[in-house]
Amino acid sequence: MTDTFYNFELDARLAADTFPLCQSDMSLLLVMRDARFPWIVLVPKRGGLFDLVDLTPTDESAVMADQRAVAERLKRETGCDKLNIASLGNKVRQLHIHIIARFENDEAWPGPVWGVGTPEPMMTLPAWAQSVRNRLVTNDWSAA
Amino acid sequence: MTDTFYNFELDARLAADTFPLCQSDMSLLLVMRDARFPWIVLVPKRGGLFDLVDLTPTDESAVMADQRAVAERLKRETGCDKLNIASLGNKVRQLHIHIIARFENDEAWPGPVWGVGTPEPMMTLPAWAQSVRNRLVTNDWSAA
Repeated sequence: MTDTFYNFELDARLAADTFPLCQSDMSLLLVMRDARFPWIVLVPKRGGLFDLVDLTPTDESAVMADQRAVAERLKRETGCDKLNIASLGNKVRQLHIHIIARFENDEAWPGPVWGVGTPEPMMTLPAWAQSVRNRLVTNDWSAA
Repeated sequence: MTDTFYNFELDARLAADTFPLCQSDMSLLLVMRDARFPWIVLVPKRGGLFDLVDLTPTDESAVMADQRAVAERLKRETGCDKLNIASLGNKVRQLHIHIIARFENDEAWPGPVWGVGTPEPMMTLPAWAQSVRNRLVTNDWSAA
């Protein structure tokens, strides 16, 4: 996934670990290939960003609006107990935001999900992800 | 720390694990008592909030502005390699946002900090925290 205007090219590791879901003008949404957790990764489609504070104020507002829209729909579609939202990026430096639906009986609860156990393979987009996409694309989002 | 108007009372575990640093109209800043990591916790001073999506849009804008101000100053004062910013709340349910300065040689790198090793006791506010506070209180923040 590239956007030459904004000098954006999706990090190779993020691309390998995820399915593309959909996108807005500002954000690319990916689904982590791990069937244990409903886990979306939001990537701002701008080159050269590492930390949230690297976003311009205008782009930051757009990212936060997208993050909220995605998080609300993920919570509604999964009925999760808690949302975990995080920008870490210690390994993959390209700015990306994890939006994860957590359950009190999931494998990592109550700890964070990163680095816990072994990902459970996911061959196709799960139903929750299709529902999130269907709800988003009625608004300002398009298929990825 | 209580704000009866907004039905806000700081969670007892957050209070026990931190030093108070300063506050804005919207946010209370705490410093985690763990000398291994420069680690601020931002708590929106509103009762009954668990997830970021529980914030009203107006309060969310104020929280995001505070988060950015704090993160920029933390990065500048510490010269960190990466910021980690996260709202998890699986254990402490009161909405709070971690803003952590990470270094490539810190104890948890490149993993996240939560649940890693044993906190290193901190008896007084470290210099970086005093500098962050001094820079914030020249603007809209007051001592906590």
